[in-house]
Amino acid sequence: MKNLTLLTDLYQLTMMQGYFKSGFGDKEVVFDMFYRKNPYNGGYAICAGLEQVIEYIKELHFDKEDIQYLRSLNIFEEDFLGALKEFRFTGDIYAIPEGTVIFPNEPILRVHSTIMEAQYIETAILNIINHQSLIATKASRVRLAAQNDRVLEFGLRRAQGPDAGVYGARAAIIGGCNGTSDVLAGQIFDVPISGTHAHSWVMSFDSELEAFRTYANIFPQAAILLVDTYDTLTSGVPNAIKIFDEMREQGKLTGLYGIRLDSGDLAYLSKKARRMLDAAGHEEAIISASSDLDENLITDLKLQGAKITLWGVGTRLITSEGWSAFGGVYKIVACKDKYGDFIPKIKLSDNAAKVTNPGIKKVVRCYDTEHHKIKVDLIALDNEKFDESQTIIASDHNARWKKMTLHPGQFTLRELLVPIFQAGACVYDSPTILEIAEYAKSEMNTLWEEHLRFINPEIMPVDLSDKLYLLKNDMLKNFEKGL
Amino acid sequence: MKNLTLLTDLYQLTMMQGYFKSGFGDKEVVFDMFYRKNPYNGGYAICAGLEQVIEYIKELHFDKEDIQYLRSLNIFEEDFLGALKEFRFTGDIYAIPEGTVIFPNEPILRVHSTIMEAQYIETAILNIINHQSLIATKASRVRLAAQNDRVLEFGLRRAQGPDAGVYGARAAIIGGCNGTSDVLAGQIFDVPISGTHAHSWVMSFDSELEAFRTYANIFPQAAILLVDTYDTLTSGVPNAIKIFDEMREQGKLTGLYGIRLDSGDLAYLSKKARRMLDAAGHEEAIISASSDLDENLITDLKLQGAKITLWGVGTRLITSEGWSAFGGVYKIVACKDKYGDFIPKIKLSDNAAKVTNPGIKKVVRCYDTEHHKIKVDLIALDNEKFDESQTIIASDHNARWKKMTLHPGQFTLRELLVPIFQAGACVYDSPTILEIAEYAKSEMNTLWEEHLRFINPEIMPVDLSDKLYLLKNDMLKNFEKGL
Repeated sequence: MKNLTLLTDLYQLTMMQGYFKSGFGDKEVVFDMFYRKNPYNGGYAICAGLEQVIEYIKELHFDKEDIQYLRSLNIFEEDFLGALKEFRFTGDIYAIPEGTVIFPNEPILRVHSTIMEAQYIETAILNIINHQSLIATKASRVRLAAQNDRVLEFGLRRAQGPDAGVYGARAAIIGGCNGTSDVLAGQIFDVPISGTHAHSWVMSFDSELEAFRTYANIFPQAAILLVDTYDTLTSGVPNAIKIFDEMREQGKLTGLYGIRLDSGDLAYLSKKARRMLDAAGHEEAIISASSDLDENLITDLKLQGAKITLWGVGTRLITSEGWSAFGGVYKIVACKDKYGDFIPKIKLSDNAAKVTNPGIKKVVRCYDTEHHKIKVDLIALDNEKFDESQTIIASDHNARWKKMTLHPGQFTLRELLVPIFQAGACVYDSPTILEIAEYAKSEMNTLWEEHLRFINPEIMPVDLSDKLYLLKNDMLKNFEKGL
Repeated sequence: MKNLTLLTDLYQLTMMQGYFKSGFGDKEVVFDMFYRKNPYNGGYAICAGLEQVIEYIKELHFDKEDIQYLRSLNIFEEDFLGALKEFRFTGDIYAIPEGTVIFPNEPILRVHSTIMEAQYIETAILNIINHQSLIATKASRVRLAAQNDRVLEFGLRRAQGPDAGVYGARAAIIGGCNGTSDVLAGQIFDVPISGTHAHSWVMSFDSELEAFRTYANIFPQAAILLVDTYDTLTSGVPNAIKIFDEMREQGKLTGLYGIRLDSGDLAYLSKKARRMLDAAGHEEAIISASSDLDENLITDLKLQGAKITLWGVGTRLITSEGWSAFGGVYKIVACKDKYGDFIPKIKLSDNAAKVTNPGIKKVVRCYDTEHHKIKVDLIALDNEKFDESQTIIASDHNARWKKMTLHPGQFTLRELLVPIFQAGACVYDSPTILEIAEYAKSEMNTLWEEHLRFINPEIMPVDLSDKLYLLKNDMLKNFEKGL
């Protein structure tokens, strides 16, 4: 990864200089990253991007050229620029591991450090986690729609720049794709890559049949032929069948083989093609499809009996078309005062949903013992203790009259935030992408079916602990009183 | 820019090996890049990204590690991998300069090279130009809505990964933004960067007033105070006015100063704040705003008399929310046959809009002499001659009965595609970003007002020359006859 130190908003630097010149650049603070709304108004999100945040934090330093550039802006003073030369991240970071199912308002990453450091790293952390969590969540929806079929990520050419393709492919695999077409992502992350041929292959031969034959000769182990260059049912499929027959005669039909549809009505064409393939004795030939696919279209195609078992999903996954930003934010929640105590901070807003949860917090997840599915998440103060021998009474903090009582034995607990950096040193080993993908799959199994619905899903209750609720209310009341 | 050689779809490499093993990897071909639909169903697009395509092509080569990685996939043979070691781009590229107004179906980039080379570079070219053209187009719409106000791009934290932020900022400036918050984009592209402070600045002080005072003391030349941390009209604006009064007393009110609104109803708040500022004698104080802005909301706010003159546009610009992919494609249009002649190629489709225009083509733009605005674009065969002394009869190729006759003197002509690479060598100097932005601004002036409407704009006629039209029809008829 390139050095992303200057990947920030200018105001982070102007504020840093402000803190520095005011003499409290070393003031200790705590910031939370959280998000407010599930993508697509779904029932959950999947967090991703932590590994790239770790790399970013480890690499964080201002090069000589960076300092020179900042000097050229004529807004920074030399003492401040001098301090930047030595600038490193020296604080603590806690985060929810990648691939975990998360819900709105939960701190998914928490930074404890000097105000200069915590402020500076905001933009890159948000950029990275917002992007990858968005795509991982979208991919998990596509995975749900595709059920047990294979899903390949194909969107690089439509991604919003090179990184959007590469890190988007990473996130897509975390979310449940089986592979990607993106060779660079394959190289960097050691994930499966996949691909056969395009229309241009067919068009560069004198005939479709010759194009297919040549391809199948060179790649007999993965002879997936694209059949819609001229006409799917009168030309593409019959020619593909001829080639499959030839391969069978030559004893070469030992690997994966089949066709790909890339236009037209995929339900109709796949059913027709299936019948043609079967009638020719090619029941084993697979039918793959691509063409503006997403979770909604895949669901509909399946409802209509489409005979597709391999889905190539491009633009709408890699750009998260229709919900193009995760919307995670990063807010100050506590400042150390002159006595060395952390004082909780709250941000008000005309918009009630934008009022923040104050204080240093953790997320405690309660699972149903019998099914190991999530009953409720508690956002609590970090120094609160919960254990499985107590009775937990939880409610949805948006509807506190809805109570849920969990008796000992009925639930297990898990704290979601784990240490990532301590005193500037990384204390966390990122799993491989395939391990994260496997974990994310198990995480999806901790959701009840009703949270997985695409339209109008049940909302997971996320409660504030009583202590946090009281703290927040007290702070709001004090503001009302003008304190 | 990092080496993006492996930024490609695997099928480009499998096809390349296919061509190589079939003995015609050196076959000469021509590919066009074009797009099919204006973003947001608008009346135009702005192309961008060429400079990054040039860097990519110049850097194109497989490192030892790249070859090793490809070998590890067990699908490539040693002779092919050996050929990749020497692989460079050796062909010609023509492109429409960045910042130019473009329309659907026009070749915006044309590659002449061996089939292996032309095929390989498809993915990266599409990725880069699709992304930047999308954001430049979106930014130009925001620019139109904001009229003569300043517009700043603020979206880095919500962009789809680091590159989406950095190259998105570049494209946003090409499209008409006056600056960006993105420091890395400022460093790389030498464009204006901008920013003041966040809510966390205010919250890290004991009072809003103290936070404002400290900020204004340190940055008296750009004292833009964010007034919505607690309550905009009862706390933020009154406190800001106190600080501006203090600054005036101290003779420090010499630079840009004012407030920023980041939540609530921006029309209402800006009008109220304007009156409060004016009543306090701060008619010069500016009111800037951010918060889910895009061209539609800015238009509405202006219609409602919002007193905002500086717009910070974030998420919805940098992700092009609601139209998240440009959808540019790259299609083979000609192949050299064994006699050394280029044979036009066409791709059919059940979907009429997806039938390609065959042959080696150029784009000839006809301007109205009096207004220097675009009358019609002609897509023509590259060897056709047009000059301003002839009469041009053009029509919309989707509605050929609609004729337009342009007599000598009434029009001027311009060919849009210019040479970028010749025989593998770059022959084009990219202008600076600010030069491109200036050019894009002049390009916007070549559009009639009716093409600039956001909703249901007039569609610019893009005609096929008679020769191209006949060629295409002949090829379609031959396919009908089963040839």
